[in-house]
Amino acid sequence: MTFPETLTQDAARIEAHLMATLAHRADQPVIHAMRYALRGGKRLRGFLVLEGARMHGLATTQALPAAAAVESLHAYSLVHDDMPCMDDDDLRRGQPTIHVTWDEATAVLAGDALQTLAFELLADPALGSGDTRIALVAGLAKASGAEGMVLGQALDIAAETATAPLTLQQITELQAGKTGALIRWSAEAGAILAGADPQPLARYATALGLAFQIWDDVLDVEGDPEKTGKRLHKDADAGKATFVSLLGLDAAKTRARSLISEAESHLSPYGDRAANLIACARFVISRDT
Amino acid sequence: MTFPETLTQDAARIEAHLMATLAHRADQPVIHAMRYALRGGKRLRGFLVLEGARMHGLATTQALPAAAAVESLHAYSLVHDDMPCMDDDDLRRGQPTIHVTWDEATAVLAGDALQTLAFELLADPALGSGDTRIALVAGLAKASGAEGMVLGQALDIAAETATAPLTLQQITELQAGKTGALIRWSAEAGAILAGADPQPLARYATALGLAFQIWDDVLDVEGDPEKTGKRLHKDADAGKATFVSLLGLDAAKTRARSLISEAESHLSPYGDRAANLIACARFVISRDT
Repeated sequence: MTFPETLTQDAARIEAHLMATLAHRADQPVIHAMRYALRGGKRLRGFLVLEGARMHGLATTQALPAAAAVESLHAYSLVHDDMPCMDDDDLRRGQPTIHVTWDEATAVLAGDALQTLAFELLADPALGSGDTRIALVAGLAKASGAEGMVLGQALDIAAETATAPLTLQQITELQAGKTGALIRWSAEAGAILAGADPQPLARYATALGLAFQIWDDVLDVEGDPEKTGKRLHKDADAGKATFVSLLGLDAAKTRARSLISEAESHLSPYGDRAANLIACARFVISRDT
Repeated sequence: MTFPETLTQDAARIEAHLMATLAHRADQPVIHAMRYALRGGKRLRGFLVLEGARMHGLATTQALPAAAAVESLHAYSLVHDDMPCMDDDDLRRGQPTIHVTWDEATAVLAGDALQTLAFELLADPALGSGDTRIALVAGLAKASGAEGMVLGQALDIAAETATAPLTLQQITELQAGKTGALIRWSAEAGAILAGADPQPLARYATALGLAFQIWDDVLDVEGDPEKTGKRLHKDADAGKATFVSLLGLDAAKTRARSLISEAESHLSPYGDRAANLIACARFVISRDT
């Protein structure tokens, strides 16, 4: 199966797992909004979990709750980031955002409950021993909290009102928290599930995450809003420093490509088993959404 | 040591543990806001965790991360509940709320990170085996997510715009989620840490949690805003049904007292070891804050 086919199949499995988890919950707007927020998306983080597990000889089904967990965590961050007091986005994946479709209170609560759901999913005995599951909980909490994703988001919001634009070092640190930490946890999860050394996958993911963010900035400049489902030139219009504004478009692309080569090099211990992760890395800097 | 002395000492220990956990984090508004939100309060939930552990012969220090976890989870819920799009409170524990002191974005992010911190704290190896810790994670997620606390809060917000006031059954269900589920988890945690049957403490906490909420409604009518640190008649002014509006003041007090008797009866398996939890139950319906 090719990488795009695997990605599509994994995305469907993850969505099915999430919808099954929420199947018999209360008939309330907050639950409807959670389901809405969990639909669609590339599921790149969830794919990294599943592929990392398969590379260590584990079944996709065993890793599925962890893949669903990171996608629920990611969905929570998008719901809150889109709120008027944050990035104020009215469109996400081509659809109206939660606070537009429902209201701000529902966006706060649905985001809150999606974060909780992520940790609930990691407690699933299907994932393995208590030690394995608590290691995943500890890692996800570290990656997504005030030393990881939330810190990155806070730095991003502070940058909007800062007197001077961020430097390249500052924006790299910001993105390491905002998107990098969760991508890294996703890549490590399969090794943790298998009791293997997560270091090679962690290094792969660190380079991949930075390339991913650089490419997002490229797409903000030359993407097709019909495909990305987002407004174009959003960062530029807001006067925010991006990898493209700091490096220039061509140098930003070159830097992303070089990071992808580096990411691939970290996979050498896995030999042929890394084929899908190599294809994934190349996809990150060729995607148009 | 009397119950009030134990409560005060436990509150200080829990706060010290939380501040130590956040001691070396980034010098950013979101971290400052987290510390601000974690200060003060009665720490009733944390006390229940610690006392439940001591009743099973465990040391206070072993249970401390779990007590800190539930207080961090509770603090997150208060920060988000106070936001303008939710309950719109400008005062909490006698101090300006986070979105007043900082801004709404900081309130969203600090609340988000306080929830994450709760799960991070439960991963602390000091609490015991991986199986024990993941059982606490699973329970806290269930109690605080879209089947527990968040559902209760969503029902509470929906009630504000409902055409008919809630019935007694509806408000009981609402409170079972909004405050009951977390109080119950707190009381059960000590038994889970000790590998004991959590059922007697769960039953105690179910009655205690409902009495606690009825007494909150009593204080909303006849409390002293100087002591509660909250605006008075808030629910009545908003036209919301409360236990007092539905039962009348005297019958509400009688119901709370009867629930406390019931709560005490569930502690009989613990004999004299339950003295502090019995005192705690009586405190819940005699407190003026």
